[in-house]
Amino acid sequence: MLPLRLHLPAHRGLRLLSLFTRFGSRQTVAFSVESKVRSVAMASYSTAAADASRRLLFRQLFEKESSTYTYLLADMGHPEKPAVLIDPVDKTVDRDLSLIRDLGVKLIYAMNTHVHADHVTGTGIIKVKVPGVQSVISKASNAKADHLIEQGDKINFGNLYLEVRATPGHTLGCVTYVTGDGLNQPNPRLAFTGDAVLIRGCGRTDFQGGSSRQLYQSVHSQIFTLPKETLIYPAHDYKGFTVSTVGEEMLYNPRLTKDEETFKSIMENLKLAYPKMIDVAVPANMACGLQDVAVKAEAASS
Amino acid sequence: MLPLRLHLPAHRGLRLLSLFTRFGSRQTVAFSVESKVRSVAMASYSTAAADASRRLLFRQLFEKESSTYTYLLADMGHPEKPAVLIDPVDKTVDRDLSLIRDLGVKLIYAMNTHVHADHVTGTGIIKVKVPGVQSVISKASNAKADHLIEQGDKINFGNLYLEVRATPGHTLGCVTYVTGDGLNQPNPRLAFTGDAVLIRGCGRTDFQGGSSRQLYQSVHSQIFTLPKETLIYPAHDYKGFTVSTVGEEMLYNPRLTKDEETFKSIMENLKLAYPKMIDVAVPANMACGLQDVAVKAEAASS
Repeated sequence: MLPLRLHLPAHRGLRLLSLFTRFGSRQTVAFSVESKVRSVAMASYSTAAADASRRLLFRQLFEKESSTYTYLLADMGHPEKPAVLIDPVDKTVDRDLSLIRDLGVKLIYAMNTHVHADHVTGTGIIKVKVPGVQSVISKASNAKADHLIEQGDKINFGNLYLEVRATPGHTLGCVTYVTGDGLNQPNPRLAFTGDAVLIRGCGRTDFQGGSSRQLYQSVHSQIFTLPKETLIYPAHDYKGFTVSTVGEEMLYNPRLTKDEETFKSIMENLKLAYPKMIDVAVPANMACGLQDVAVKAEAASS
Repeated sequence: MLPLRLHLPAHRGLRLLSLFTRFGSRQTVAFSVESKVRSVAMASYSTAAADASRRLLFRQLFEKESSTYTYLLADMGHPEKPAVLIDPVDKTVDRDLSLIRDLGVKLIYAMNTHVHADHVTGTGIIKVKVPGVQSVISKASNAKADHLIEQGDKINFGNLYLEVRATPGHTLGCVTYVTGDGLNQPNPRLAFTGDAVLIRGCGRTDFQGGSSRQLYQSVHSQIFTLPKETLIYPAHDYKGFTVSTVGEEMLYNPRLTKDEETFKSIMENLKLAYPKMIDVAVPANMACGLQDVAVKAEAASS
């Protein structure tokens, strides 16, 4: 379990979510999400408000071979600029760490939405290369990690947090990470849905404890109940889309807009090929992508 | 030349650029850029301010084969939701038009940053499939289009606009489109740099009237003079980055941070292969991607 401390400044009147760039001590800049703060006693919060207005750094990254999206989030309003990386891929770890260095943020968590079957997670390599980084995955996945999270947990990075929503169905251990909805948190929220909701699609349900009925219920109870303007950032996209929203998928997702029985029937008749990487990726991903000490040592020396 | 009318509401105090999603009449939602308006007479602007706060819809789209980014921008604050598409690819036209339908925006311009050598533009097919859409490219490119634009031109869509900056060097006709910096315009600005500035790189300069010296001067005079927080959205990325900023490239671009002579030497020694698509793409792209009437007819019937 993660420490679930949540430190919110005593500001009032959360206003806006923004695209934003900032320059920090290393002239770092970012595509960020901004929460503007209004306070009754504005003057006394001037510095904090400026910080808050430059709060969430956000970067979307793509791995072409498996069409996987990795997400970097950091609290730029916090002195240490603590950062999390969601769904890193082994092959792009060096790219991600280079960006993290350029942006001057401090990676604290390498997280997965689930045990991936199509690529090896970069989590283990990152832990070796950046001492102090801790891995995060759901308890229900039965995978190894430093933190095993469950429904309702909050993953804090600086004064921002991600809320855990259990969204099983693609796999038994799938979760969706949603940015906070409290004061000074991103608004609209960002939902990192893994393979539960893809843009105009969803993950297959025929492996790893998958269940089409469970996926349908997960999405409708945990994702489609979020505010419609919530931004959906999936683990993959195969057509070149980068983002959607809850409202858009509720209207246009060709599978999840159907009733439960139709959805089940669609999912049972996809006739998909056996995943190429599954026999390598799943055992590796049960242990942060590192199956044994030899791999670990190799990663450390590279 | 484009009609250069610029209609700005009489608001004062442009504040923020935001990630934003909205629901319109078709429950459309978007990853948008928001300009918050403060007015001395706020009450009298309440409706307009609400519109302004939901102004710029922004979507980034990716074509995997040529690693090309296409960008959709629309003014959601305008009743007609006029939209522009920058650097569409022929193979992904149907995807783009489907998204445009879902979002309920009205495409008015299909634009190119330059005559591409690595893919065929979707501009011509779009013009056939969506009557009324007009094509835009630089006059210096010598390509055909409905509007031939030059340095300093403004391309209006609703109450937003893109400013044209001539940035030759990759090709003779390269331009960078930059969102407006006036009242009620996106802030920070977005710069669509084509192949002039890529994330941690730049376009080659050995074809189509390219010149490393000219590219260096273009970037330093037209792009690196923009505010450092300006978001850079290039025409391509081959490593999975989606966005950068002027400040970030001024610090970390491995080529463009060098002095002019070193840059010239780097560019002259890249030893790149002859572009696979150039002999097909360039002649096609000189005419909006449609070389002859037969292609046009085929596109219309598909």
